[in-house]
Amino acid sequence: MVLLNIKKEGNEEQKKAVAESASDLIEDNMVIGLGTGSTVSYLIEEIGKKIEEKKTKIEAVCSSFETKHKAKKQGIYVREMDDVDEIDLCIDGADQVDEELNLVKGGGAAHFREKILASYSNKFICIIDETKLTDTLKDPIPIEVHPFSYKPVMDYLKNKMNSEPVLRESLRKDGPLITDNGNFVVDTDFGLISNPDNLNNELNDLVGVIEHGLFIDLVDEVFVAGSSGINIMKK
Amino acid sequence: MVLLNIKKEGNEEQKKAVAESASDLIEDNMVIGLGTGSTVSYLIEEIGKKIEEKKTKIEAVCSSFETKHKAKKQGIYVREMDDVDEIDLCIDGADQVDEELNLVKGGGAAHFREKILASYSNKFICIIDETKLTDTLKDPIPIEVHPFSYKPVMDYLKNKMNSEPVLRESLRKDGPLITDNGNFVVDTDFGLISNPDNLNNELNDLVGVIEHGLFIDLVDEVFVAGSSGINIMKK
Repeated sequence: MVLLNIKKEGNEEQKKAVAESASDLIEDNMVIGLGTGSTVSYLIEEIGKKIEEKKTKIEAVCSSFETKHKAKKQGIYVREMDDVDEIDLCIDGADQVDEELNLVKGGGAAHFREKILASYSNKFICIIDETKLTDTLKDPIPIEVHPFSYKPVMDYLKNKMNSEPVLRESLRKDGPLITDNGNFVVDTDFGLISNPDNLNNELNDLVGVIEHGLFIDLVDEVFVAGSSGINIMKK
Repeated sequence: MVLLNIKKEGNEEQKKAVAESASDLIEDNMVIGLGTGSTVSYLIEEIGKKIEEKKTKIEAVCSSFETKHKAKKQGIYVREMDDVDEIDLCIDGADQVDEELNLVKGGGAAHFREKILASYSNKFICIIDETKLTDTLKDPIPIEVHPFSYKPVMDYLKNKMNSEPVLRESLRKDGPLITDNGNFVVDTDFGLISNPDNLNNELNDLVGVIEHGLFIDLVDEVFVAGSSGINIMKK
């Protein structure tokens, strides 16, 4: 079994800086969508400071149990997806970002709910440190699959799409990682992805896939923290 | 709240006849995929007779708990999807079948697993009584959605696709029907579907949809029972 390098560690100082910068976008009484991961964790802390200092009210729909618990701890009003009529702003990290602002996500196995939040929010901002920038998206591409469908989907990825799928293992129990939705994650290797649009369509059409980690044409702006400060990439 | 006519009753004698005819395709030691619904129930009874009379061994992967229990009762070896390397033949009913052999399924809320079986089997045969034939596919189109995604998906179906989505209610408990996968079903009305391919692509791309009931270009043959016998439609 091949072990893929699921998640880059990145630069903690840059993550903090970009989270702080993005927190300025959050206004009183906003309903926000919150992704999952280390950069979002810094953002949640920044929101907590804002709530503490300015007595603002922030509501959030969260993409994972992890984010939900952190948000509650910081005084954010956590709402369910069907409790809100719209989400003003979604903020999330990414594992990879290319020059066209296409993303790869799913290293934290939260990409199903993250993509729903990103898709249905009025604005979606991605916050990253510069280690996540890449010329061309590449492996691993995380794919959430149902326990009923993982085997035929993995067979198809291997035999028909010439990739090398690996069922992601849990580090805390024997056997596969289980997502917050009760599903599995398959990480697969398509090499350098020269046409993310085509792969996106192919994976959207693949029966048995719950959601995949390619986020194509979803993001409005990417905030990138580098050694010289924050750079904002727009479409 | 609009109540849609989810499932046609059909003709019981014709269902029995087509199930009997299709059972002739099942050979000793085959691994079959079994759909869900009243016509498949007759098929399972026919397979039971074959096992009893000819002492044949038939293995099956089932699309629902309902089918699984019926299959076990008839002496069929029930296997999990990840226990088999291939499925020789999948047999399932449908709610609607057009002249291009496109199907609408999901009246029994089992279409997620049914589509996986249909997609990854070596051959897929659909068995129907003639009441299921239609010139043009129409409402209701069943869409399986996650509890996290049902509201934005319903909003999108209503506001962006101009349809009339209804969250399917359970008849045996208060609130929504829960699928075997723990999800909800939204039934929606797109009127007469002049281009099923386009709608299929649009629904495949719609974030938050687990699976929808349009089965485009999946079936190999449709066995249709009418007043004058069984007619086989091929692509």
